[in-house]
Amino acid sequence: MELNGVPIDNTFAEGFPIWVSRVIITGVTREWAMTAATEATGFATSAIGCPCEAGIEGFVSADETPDGRPGVSILICASKKKVPEQVMERIAECVLTAATTSVFNGMPDAEEKFDIKIHFFGDKFESKVEVGGRQCWKIPIMEGDYIGEEVFGMVKGVAGGNFFVMADNQMTALMGAKAAADAILDVKGTITSFAGGIVASGSKVGAKNYKFPIPATTNEQYCPTIREKVPDTKVPEGVKSIYELVINGVDEAAVKKAMAAGIKAAVKVPGVSFISAGNYEGKLGPFQFKLAELF
Amino acid sequence: MELNGVPIDNTFAEGFPIWVSRVIITGVTREWAMTAATEATGFATSAIGCPCEAGIEGFVSADETPDGRPGVSILICASKKKVPEQVMERIAECVLTAATTSVFNGMPDAEEKFDIKIHFFGDKFESKVEVGGRQCWKIPIMEGDYIGEEVFGMVKGVAGGNFFVMADNQMTALMGAKAAADAILDVKGTITSFAGGIVASGSKVGAKNYKFPIPATTNEQYCPTIREKVPDTKVPEGVKSIYELVINGVDEAAVKKAMAAGIKAAVKVPGVSFISAGNYEGKLGPFQFKLAELF
Amino acid sequence: MELNGVPIDNTFAEGFPIWVSRVIITGVTREWAMTAATEATGFATSAIGCPCEAGIEGFVSADETPDGRPGVSILICASKKKVPEQVMERIAECVLTAATTSVFNGMPDAEEKFDIKIHFFGDKFESKVEVGGRQCWKIPIMEGDYIGEEVFGMVKGVAGGNFFVMADNQMTALMGAKAAADAILDVKGTITSFAGGIVASGSKVGAKNYKFPIPATTNEQYCPTIREKVPDTKVPEGVKSIYELVINGVDEAAVKKAMAAGIKAAVKVPGVSFISAGNYEGKLGPFQFKLAELF
Amino acid sequence: MELNGVPIDNTFAEGFPIWVSRVIITGVTREWAMTAATEATGFATSAIGCPCEAGIEGFVSADETPDGRPGVSILICASKKKVPEQVMERIAECVLTAATTSVFNGMPDAEEKFDIKIHFFGDKFESKVEVGGRQCWKIPIMEGDYIGEEVFGMVKGVAGGNFFVMADNQMTALMGAKAAADAILDVKGTITSFAGGIVASGSKVGAKNYKFPIPATTNEQYCPTIREKVPDTKVPEGVKSIYELVINGVDEAAVKKAMAAGIKAAVKVPGVSFISAGNYEGKLGPFQFKLAELF
Repeated sequence: MELNGVPIDNTFAEGFPIWVSRVIITGVTREWAMTAATEATGFATSAIGCPCEAGIEGFVSADETPDGRPGVSILICASKKKVPEQVMERIAECVLTAATTSVFNGMPDAEEKFDIKIHFFGDKFESKVEVGGRQCWKIPIMEGDYIGEEVFGMVKGVAGGNFFVMADNQMTALMGAKAAADAILDVKGTITSFAGGIVASGSKVGAKNYKFPIPATTNEQYCPTIREKVPDTKVPEGVKSIYELVINGVDEAAVKKAMAAGIKAAVKVPGVSFISAGNYEGKLGPFQFKLAELF
Repeated sequence: MELNGVPIDNTFAEGFPIWVSRVIITGVTREWAMTAATEATGFATSAIGCPCEAGIEGFVSADETPDGRPGVSILICASKKKVPEQVMERIAECVLTAATTSVFNGMPDAEEKFDIKIHFFGDKFESKVEVGGRQCWKIPIMEGDYIGEEVFGMVKGVAGGNFFVMADNQMTALMGAKAAADAILDVKGTITSFAGGIVASGSKVGAKNYKFPIPATTNEQYCPTIREKVPDTKVPEGVKSIYELVINGVDEAAVKKAMAAGIKAAVKVPGVSFISAGNYEGKLGPFQFKLAELF
Repeated sequence: MELNGVPIDNTFAEGFPIWVSRVIITGVTREWAMTAATEATGFATSAIGCPCEAGIEGFVSADETPDGRPGVSILICASKKKVPEQVMERIAECVLTAATTSVFNGMPDAEEKFDIKIHFFGDKFESKVEVGGRQCWKIPIMEGDYIGEEVFGMVKGVAGGNFFVMADNQMTALMGAKAAADAILDVKGTITSFAGGIVASGSKVGAKNYKFPIPATTNEQYCPTIREKVPDTKVPEGVKSIYELVINGVDEAAVKKAMAAGIKAAVKVPGVSFISAGNYEGKLGPFQFKLAELF
Repeated sequence: MELNGVPIDNTFAEGFPIWVSRVIITGVTREWAMTAATEATGFATSAIGCPCEAGIEGFVSADETPDGRPGVSILICASKKKVPEQVMERIAECVLTAATTSVFNGMPDAEEKFDIKIHFFGDKFESKVEVGGRQCWKIPIMEGDYIGEEVFGMVKGVAGGNFFVMADNQMTALMGAKAAADAILDVKGTITSFAGGIVASGSKVGAKNYKFPIPATTNEQYCPTIREKVPDTKVPEGVKSIYELVINGVDEAAVKKAMAAGIKAAVKVPGVSFISAGNYEGKLGPFQFKLAELF
């Protein structure tokens, strides 16, 4: 199929289960909420080398936050065991310490819940307080009082939704990917965890040519500069640059919506020449997102 | 002493040794370099709960980078053993994967050097290349070729330079701290690792009231909302909000310069009423930065 | 009445009729659309000295723009005669010249329409083209082809919706006003035309003390630093700083919604102590927005 | 000649005299200074349809501003008669009304001076005050007191320094131009007045094909999409997109430096294929900036 004149590969993205928790960070202004959210979701691109995968889901207007202040929603994704630990650490180190912030459970209806004991930081000076119907702790700190929830929900979501943006030159592929990342930022329930929402270097599990153990190496099949040296290359003729959008979401529907919005945005960028997606031939992940069925 | 009419406490900030490495990240534009730098220095506020302390030192103009592209300099601070590991992980996960980036050793003259083997990611498709007199590796990736140095310097620097900005209301203290953080961003050789460069919640080692082991709890002596309940409070009368600027630097001179610049900026903000600093009475850290001697 | 514990003055804002046109600017990314929109709405704070009043209404998602690209909506407000001239000039100088932009009529259903002859810029190299059901002109330019509509709608809207944010110190009043401006940015059909959405210096018509003609001078009744010298001061006791939010909108309902959203946001900022509004005792403007009836 | 492998046309940019004034805007933080500066330099791309040409010269650190606060420097360019009027209007409407700002003369040593009577806005509540050795007026306003200088210098500078960035696709040309604009932002004494610092649509004086009077039409010689229809086209074969950087500066040296910095940045962007410049064969402007002599 084609979209805006750009061929869409007849393939699918292969996704995996991952546990996802949503934290709503509010602040005195949107900017201060975003400052904390950015720090809290840093160093969280890929579970291969980072403690988790995390990203900014979007702004939450003051009407929709428990304390009526402007907010930013973040998703933190990892194994079931690691999510509580990472939510704890990232709130404790990056949000409690940030100016004017509060945190709230962004998944109050999730069946799976966990508790982070941040109030111990109060050293018994803390107290319980209700905010917008939520049970919170009020902890005296230097700026005044920190207020936040401690019970959070998590759901079994999807990691690894993805697509590739290709072009015959790097700047076009980059702008296509950037337009896609912007569009995905508007889709609720999803994040792109890499810097700027874009992946410049895809990887394969292990190595083909190095014999010692190594968790991941470059996915040479998608490397345009060595296209001639890789017999089973998947780089289409003429393509000189590829960026990948990797999407985590709270469920399959959200990931599909994000993939569709991202691809629609990318094909609007003049010069984007091909859209494809990455999979393991269906052998590894239970979710298959066929590109042709997204639209 | 007073500065712009604001009393400066007759005290000192107490600093500690820490190992510091500088990584120069370049990109096709300043914005793309900053995108990678922001991700790479996230989740790195405090060594208590984060893998390292890291932050953005500043922009590096194209004239000063090895590849002649616009750059952002970051500092990564940790123990001597942990610095190489963290430089490796943060480059591998957050910069190699980011769009259009290269990395260069920001401390070529440091005696202490270490080597990160990122080129193994190339799975033997990589090759050596010289850029601006630097030995780099060129690794084929999806966007094209990633190019970066792998030998980095590190120096024994200073952690914990600090000062407090106080006011009789929270917004004034916040704006004073923000003005200080902006000013410190201009001082070479230093970073402020917390979100927005500001700390809202200072901590003490361990707990006073909880009996189980806990690494850090709120520093109640500097908590304005419980001033009346804390006999040895250090909150001056009338102060309702305090923010701390915590500064790491490559040496004592840089930290002093950053403290001076930050304090000068803070006292310009109308309503800022007192500047102090945190220490352990000189018992823990070898560096003492007396506020009165900064100017 | 009180809102979040902050007294809301028993008064009203007085508004005036103004003609309003909406221009949708799209770009290859949201950022490039915003770059053009910012230039196009600059030097447009107040009709007293600027050619018009203009501001950014908000983002428009790709789903809602005629060309399926990300957009920014701006409102341009002036007299019925001046609106077409200003829409023409600001598109011709600031948007046609900006990178990757298109413009579309943001009020296709308005009865009042006008035509701007930008296609003459094409010097007969231009041609007609339809985009998303809109009749556009395609003009060859250096970057490629500029595409845009030339017929725009305008409606009789409202200028001068307003409220005051007061506090006993400047930084608190400023942050209260900033939070309000952020909230108003989310309300469709409205803009705040001043820098950052905030007015620091209110004015009265003419002068009291200077005898020569002068269009506007400081509104001394609302100046905290001369409160003691102005017998009919309207500065409440203890108030040391006031910022005004001035809102233009497409109709009364939009202005009311923006006032309500802004005030609700402002009273959430700790230390904001009073909310009022400006009027001419109902003598000049046909619209009266009573604060108490907004909520 | 070539630069980084990109051919640099053997031609020159033709510049014109223009009067230039520099205004230093300071604020409580850098961000608030920038907010005012952005509004004050809006709707000021080209003297053809805007009241002046204006832009942001750069940040001024607190050490270098008269009031010791962070600043942003702007340049306002027009005829000798219009500069004072535009400096007056843009300060009065966009800076005096903006939060926390002060303004200072950025050309204290210029021989040519002018006086703007903003203090009349004070309606005789104003008073004189000295700040950092500068004679200022203090005017009571709603936020507190506005403080600013009223005597400004202006110099006979240069308008129309320029170069073209070309590529075989639009996104590459755009990123090349963006990298150039970023680089020019670092060169003191210069501005790029168009949105984002980039011109997408160059113009020629008058029209060739329309017979009625029209001040400017598209410069068809530099339009890639009609290359085949324009016998005297100057679009090199294969070029599909061109952006222009137009630079105004305080003197010839500054413009040269900006052109050199911009071109060096542009040729670093992969895919940029040609750099040229615009002139009127030396018939109109007294300044000629030969590209080959810039480096």
